[in-house]
Amino acid sequence: MITVTAYDTDRAYCQTILDFSELEPIFASWPTVWVQVREPEKPEVLKLITEAFSIHHLALEDVLTKHQRAKIEQYGDIFFIIVHELASIDELASKGELNTKQLCFFLAKNYVVSFQFEELTSLNNISEKIINNNGTIRTHGADYLASAILDTVIDTYFPVLEGLGEKLEDLEDAILENPSRQIIAEIHMTKRQLLTARRTVWPMREVLNTLLRDASHNFSNEVRLHLRDCYDHTVELIDLIETYRELGADLMDVYLSSISNRMNEVMKVLTIIATVFAPPTLIAAIYGMNFNSAISPYNMPETNWYYGYPICLAVMFLTSCSVLAFLRWKGWLGVTPQRSGDRQRSN
Amino acid sequence: MITVTAYDTDRAYCQTILDFSELEPIFASWPTVWVQVREPEKPEVLKLITEAFSIHHLALEDVLTKHQRAKIEQYGDIFFIIVHELASIDELASKGELNTKQLCFFLAKNYVVSFQFEELTSLNNISEKIINNNGTIRTHGADYLASAILDTVIDTYFPVLEGLGEKLEDLEDAILENPSRQIIAEIHMTKRQLLTARRTVWPMREVLNTLLRDASHNFSNEVRLHLRDCYDHTVELIDLIETYRELGADLMDVYLSSISNRMNEVMKVLTIIATVFAPPTLIAAIYGMNFNSAISPYNMPETNWYYGYPICLAVMFLTSCSVLAFLRWKGWLGVTPQRSGDRQRSN
Amino acid sequence: MITVTAYDTDRAYCQTILDFSELEPIFASWPTVWVQVREPEKPEVLKLITEAFSIHHLALEDVLTKHQRAKIEQYGDIFFIIVHELASIDELASKGELNTKQLCFFLAKNYVVSFQFEELTSLNNISEKIINNNGTIRTHGADYLASAILDTVIDTYFPVLEGLGEKLEDLEDAILENPSRQIIAEIHMTKRQLLTARRTVWPMREVLNTLLRDASHNFSNEVRLHLRDCYDHTVELIDLIETYRELGADLMDVYLSSISNRMNEVMKVLTIIATVFAPPTLIAAIYGMNFNSAISPYNMPETNWYYGYPICLAVMFLTSCSVLAFLRWKGWLGVTPQRSGDRQRSN
Amino acid sequence: MITVTAYDTDRAYCQTILDFSELEPIFASWPTVWVQVREPEKPEVLKLITEAFSIHHLALEDVLTKHQRAKIEQYGDIFFIIVHELASIDELASKGELNTKQLCFFLAKNYVVSFQFEELTSLNNISEKIINNNGTIRTHGADYLASAILDTVIDTYFPVLEGLGEKLEDLEDAILENPSRQIIAEIHMTKRQLLTARRTVWPMREVLNTLLRDASHNFSNEVRLHLRDCYDHTVELIDLIETYRELGADLMDVYLSSISNRMNEVMKVLTIIATVFAPPTLIAAIYGMNFNSAISPYNMPETNWYYGYPICLAVMFLTSCSVLAFLRWKGWLGVTPQRSGDRQRSN
Amino acid sequence: MITVTAYDTDRAYCQTILDFSELEPIFASWPTVWVQVREPEKPEVLKLITEAFSIHHLALEDVLTKHQRAKIEQYGDIFFIIVHELASIDELASKGELNTKQLCFFLAKNYVVSFQFEELTSLNNISEKIINNNGTIRTHGADYLASAILDTVIDTYFPVLEGLGEKLEDLEDAILENPSRQIIAEIHMTKRQLLTARRTVWPMREVLNTLLRDASHNFSNEVRLHLRDCYDHTVELIDLIETYRELGADLMDVYLSSISNRMNEVMKVLTIIATVFAPPTLIAAIYGMNFNSAISPYNMPETNWYYGYPICLAVMFLTSCSVLAFLRWKGWLGVTPQRSGDRQRSN
Repeated sequence: MITVTAYDTDRAYCQTILDFSELEPIFASWPTVWVQVREPEKPEVLKLITEAFSIHHLALEDVLTKHQRAKIEQYGDIFFIIVHELASIDELASKGELNTKQLCFFLAKNYVVSFQFEELTSLNNISEKIINNNGTIRTHGADYLASAILDTVIDTYFPVLEGLGEKLEDLEDAILENPSRQIIAEIHMTKRQLLTARRTVWPMREVLNTLLRDASHNFSNEVRLHLRDCYDHTVELIDLIETYRELGADLMDVYLSSISNRMNEVMKVLTIIATVFAPPTLIAAIYGMNFNSAISPYNMPETNWYYGYPICLAVMFLTSCSVLAFLRWKGWLGVTPQRSGDRQRSN
Repeated sequence: MITVTAYDTDRAYCQTILDFSELEPIFASWPTVWVQVREPEKPEVLKLITEAFSIHHLALEDVLTKHQRAKIEQYGDIFFIIVHELASIDELASKGELNTKQLCFFLAKNYVVSFQFEELTSLNNISEKIINNNGTIRTHGADYLASAILDTVIDTYFPVLEGLGEKLEDLEDAILENPSRQIIAEIHMTKRQLLTARRTVWPMREVLNTLLRDASHNFSNEVRLHLRDCYDHTVELIDLIETYRELGADLMDVYLSSISNRMNEVMKVLTIIATVFAPPTLIAAIYGMNFNSAISPYNMPETNWYYGYPICLAVMFLTSCSVLAFLRWKGWLGVTPQRSGDRQRSN
Repeated sequence: MITVTAYDTDRAYCQTILDFSELEPIFASWPTVWVQVREPEKPEVLKLITEAFSIHHLALEDVLTKHQRAKIEQYGDIFFIIVHELASIDELASKGELNTKQLCFFLAKNYVVSFQFEELTSLNNISEKIINNNGTIRTHGADYLASAILDTVIDTYFPVLEGLGEKLEDLEDAILENPSRQIIAEIHMTKRQLLTARRTVWPMREVLNTLLRDASHNFSNEVRLHLRDCYDHTVELIDLIETYRELGADLMDVYLSSISNRMNEVMKVLTIIATVFAPPTLIAAIYGMNFNSAISPYNMPETNWYYGYPICLAVMFLTSCSVLAFLRWKGWLGVTPQRSGDRQRSN
Repeated sequence: MITVTAYDTDRAYCQTILDFSELEPIFASWPTVWVQVREPEKPEVLKLITEAFSIHHLALEDVLTKHQRAKIEQYGDIFFIIVHELASIDELASKGELNTKQLCFFLAKNYVVSFQFEELTSLNNISEKIINNNGTIRTHGADYLASAILDTVIDTYFPVLEGLGEKLEDLEDAILENPSRQIIAEIHMTKRQLLTARRTVWPMREVLNTLLRDASHNFSNEVRLHLRDCYDHTVELIDLIETYRELGADLMDVYLSSISNRMNEVMKVLTIIATVFAPPTLIAAIYGMNFNSAISPYNMPETNWYYGYPICLAVMFLTSCSVLAFLRWKGWLGVTPQRSGDRQRSN
Repeated sequence: MITVTAYDTDRAYCQTILDFSELEPIFASWPTVWVQVREPEKPEVLKLITEAFSIHHLALEDVLTKHQRAKIEQYGDIFFIIVHELASIDELASKGELNTKQLCFFLAKNYVVSFQFEELTSLNNISEKIINNNGTIRTHGADYLASAILDTVIDTYFPVLEGLGEKLEDLEDAILENPSRQIIAEIHMTKRQLLTARRTVWPMREVLNTLLRDASHNFSNEVRLHLRDCYDHTVELIDLIETYRELGADLMDVYLSSISNRMNEVMKVLTIIATVFAPPTLIAAIYGMNFNSAISPYNMPETNWYYGYPICLAVMFLTSCSVLAFLRWKGWLGVTPQRSGDRQRSN
């Protein structure tokens, strides 16, 4: 549950510890120590941690509570930081919800103590880098380690947001082709995911801003540049999220107007049908009446005309044609060419 | 009506008093005193209070007015604070309205005087904790008591907001399944409740911010950390409320487009019916005409054909079929499979 | 037109003056003087005022122009303040428009000069209080008089806003019961009234803020507390207005979706009618055709069957029933129970 | 093209000049000079100006570019200011677009150089005032002239905005009476005009704010009061514009819901027609069938009843009546009284 | 890949270099050097650059990453700036997407090193100006060169935004004439392009603001004026973009209401048709019934009247006419004149 990684420029040491007494010699002999605590809610882990580090009860409460807001707090000269990693895009696709994984850590002069409830890819990456001496982490102290953690945490957001951006583009194409009902649900889901992402990123920006503004005098120049870079990344993330959110809101409008448009088309077809068939049906009904033409020459004399039937059919046909001509003049029959135009555009 | 709770680290004392003279000895012998006033609008209570404490007439007016905005004011070195507790989620469910209960209190160096119109769970909790010596309240002074009151007051908001969040999720599922008219009323009600919550939480955040910024020099370090924690909680509450409000606004859009979608479906069915039945009905009406076929071979000769009737039925059937084929080509008959797709998704 | 009210703690003096010369002795013998000018646009009033007080031509222009924005300006050590009283809720109901009544006044060390175009209830109230020695105005100087004027002016907003809030609740009930066309007009009118209220209150908040921030060193402690109270009231007013504005915007959405919902219901009825009646009508039309059954056994043999007619009626009936069954399966016939559910809810 | 107006308290002098040499003696002998340049884009004008005043090339570029944003810049102790006059409401009515006319001027210690592409009513007014010694311009220096120019420029906005406000009220009445298609176009046009006005007024407010804040130490007290007045006017303009913009947005909503409402009404009529006529038409069609009643007593025996026809008509009539009764119960026939109610309201 | 342009007031020198060693003598002998790097991602280019200039690894990462946010960073006394050029309006038309081209550059005391992935018209223009000694670039140092680069980069936005503005006007005309489905897609596309433009311009404004605020002490007065001009241009761009975005949002509303209006018109035609044809069709069906008039004088006696048929036709005609009269009274037949009114307006 508790892994200790200690390193200096030349060497690195990694061990799982089970008892408080194992910690002390490590702290004594290494310049930078990273204590990585998994599942801090277990009583035995909790007991060991509270023995080893005198953590303020408010901070401990935060460590043990999931779904906290990202924040930074200063207890004496120790920083307590909460941030969130984003689960990978594959998880998003399979679960339909953005999954944020909480990471708390204390940053002191020569050590970092991190707490996590789940496996975090960012921490695993850093751990590997330290062991394999990839990158420059080993050449700096605990503050650089903290900035590296923040950097990799923030980097988990970019692929997910790109995935959401691509989803929005797919939805846009789908709306213009065929505005089905499933699409609203998907737009809504994407907007909710972006809302979750925004709620996670905004306080992380504040955390980095506070670190840069309040605390930069403690940090080396290199760390400061690194944190500024992280801060720029959060600003870029917020930019992306806001842009996607506006695109999402716009898509809802496009969807609504697509639906209205389609209904218009449906209504036109209905009206055309009704308009074209009503007059001939009336005429046919008229000549189906049973007025007694034997009694009077005024009673349906047409039925006894030699060409009565063909004339009647012709009148029906002409009525329908003139109705169609009227509708074409009104511009209601230009529907089909327009749709093919749409199709060409969307290819 | 007036309960006095006095305590130091070792002992606690709790008594209901009826007269001003009973107060003085308590103040003299205990380091921290909490005077809890219920129903301050009663004349006898009011008289006793104004005798005991020289309250400014503006503050007294605030104490006696319900539905005030949360605020903090400083009269000399005494803070006057108004905040609001939220009634429990069960009350919300039964009444349909968020019920905010006002709590005013004065915070002086060694005492707190609180005023309430109704029973407040937060104050009862604190009272119990002091008597039973749960938690750490007894080990600190009046400022810590005030921060504990604020903390428990703010904690009443979280379960209610979670309830509202769950309600929104239920509504979302309900919209995608069956957008009935009752749902708008419920979305609207939830949005109004969130509006009420926002109106209550925003000024509480200002109150805590003012306490932290202006007054922290008077407070112990422990109280300051506690207040910062409270402040973080109000920020988190505002975050939650804004997120829910956006979700609510989004749900209204989803609802509107669901309705449009459904209307589209209805219209399609209507149009299909009209389109499929109009041609055969016209044909039937035509052959129901009474043109005299005895007079002329041009008058409805079909009626005298040997296979006239079956041919006529076949023509009707073919017309309807070709109309259906045309509608299928238009993509209007793909309605039913899509709906079942929706159902699968929402499971 | 010009009323002078002079007072100290013990006495009060009130007189209508017509000439400049009458003013001087009053100013000489009383510590606090309030000159209340009605209808300043009249030339004789204007002449007297400009003789008595050396008013800057820009301030004079403001005094004479109706519908100014609330503002505060400092000419030397004299404050020039414009605020607006709100006409009572009864006037609102009868006129349909929020009526704001302008009040300008100069506040100097020992006098207040106020200008009004119409009768102002707030000034009348204060005048009465001074004469009858109600409240605490007489015990303080001109600055307290000014703060009392501001206080009563602001208090005219609360009943009107409460009236608007109640109107919004009535509209909400009306929408859910029967979304008629008159309701949009009323929502729109209420939103316009709130817009007017906002335009009037916002600058009043700025006025009070400026008074509190820039000028508090001139004012007594009591006046400062009073002004802070006024400021809190304007903040509360803005809060209320914004909440009502959001509710109003929300109501428009609820209205739109109610209309859509109702149209959906209408369309469903139409579609059900069309769908249920189209097949039997076609069948009846078919058997109304005049194919000669004497010529061929294939020509409408059914018309000569012994049970032809009852069978035909049965077929019609069954067709309609199966259509209804299909619609019920589609869930379109569940309309009526839902509506009654709505009614119960809104009771 | 170039008019020079020079004045002191007693005299004023106005001349059109063609050559640089004419300028120098005027500057030498008058305390305040106003050089008014028309059509600065003409090469001969440009040459003269650049000879006479050493204008920075960036400022010159601004002078020669139309449709700049209002701004203020300081070159040494010379202010360079761009503002915009608004064409009169008559022009707006005839052209359908808000026409903003650019005015640039340099303000130095003892002179103002103004540049204009078109005739500007504000400058003409000021010119006249100086010549005829109206107002107080002659009694002050160049800074007062500049503030007078800004004042008259801002005053051109009020009548135009009042015109737009009246237009919005007319549109509102028109929407509630008859929501025709032309109205959307007009709402949209009005919103676009307000957008243009906003884009012009906002930077002018900034210009005045900068003048007041940065530069007031150079200006006389009188000029400062004047500029503050101008600033208040721009704030009032922005207030007005924002209010009108919100009203315009609201009108679009009202329009949409009016349309929906009207469509609802249309649909109701259609449904009523269909519902009332479908049953009797089916009945008539049934008795138009040609089942042979001679063959069987079950084949349409009604046709041979003595009262068959009247009974049939009565059944038709009763069916339609019961349908109407059902619709009245549903509340769909209460349409006409409501409309007359609307009409009364809008009178 | 690497072009070096060196110049002083009198001379300019331009050469493509392939090796690090070529750079040094140029730096030694010229006061201002501009190293223009194309395709920095190529390994040989990268190697040369990192040899020549000691670039911080974070800045190098930024140089090599496309689609960065515009930003400014200070490494010691060297500024690192990222901005974006906009591809020409022709490219926009052909690709349908706003194409932003990234440009990074380092600004040191006596040199500028710029990096680009694609051909940039702005850099080519500046290069030409230096060689041909157009403008004033040669007379100033590296800071002026940087401000000239920023200026030309910003100038690439104006023609594109004007193009988008014209597009919006075209769309507006198209909506009022014929709201087809392709228009939503185009409005959406334009809004997305404006969103992209905004995302690019906002950080560029920040870059210029930071340059002006933090760093102006290093720059000559001329450069400062130039940068202020650039800053004004970005503010103007943002103004334009926001105005266009609001117009775009408004167009979507206009579109939606146009569609609703059109549907209303369609529905009216349908209702008119149904209303006019339903009564005569019912009458015709009635007289098509086969009640035996031989059996009873009550069975369809009209069929045996002498004028039965003409009277029947007249009744049908009158029914339809009275329906039309009713509809005209309802105001539903005023459709056609209104449309022609629209057409006139839009010409």
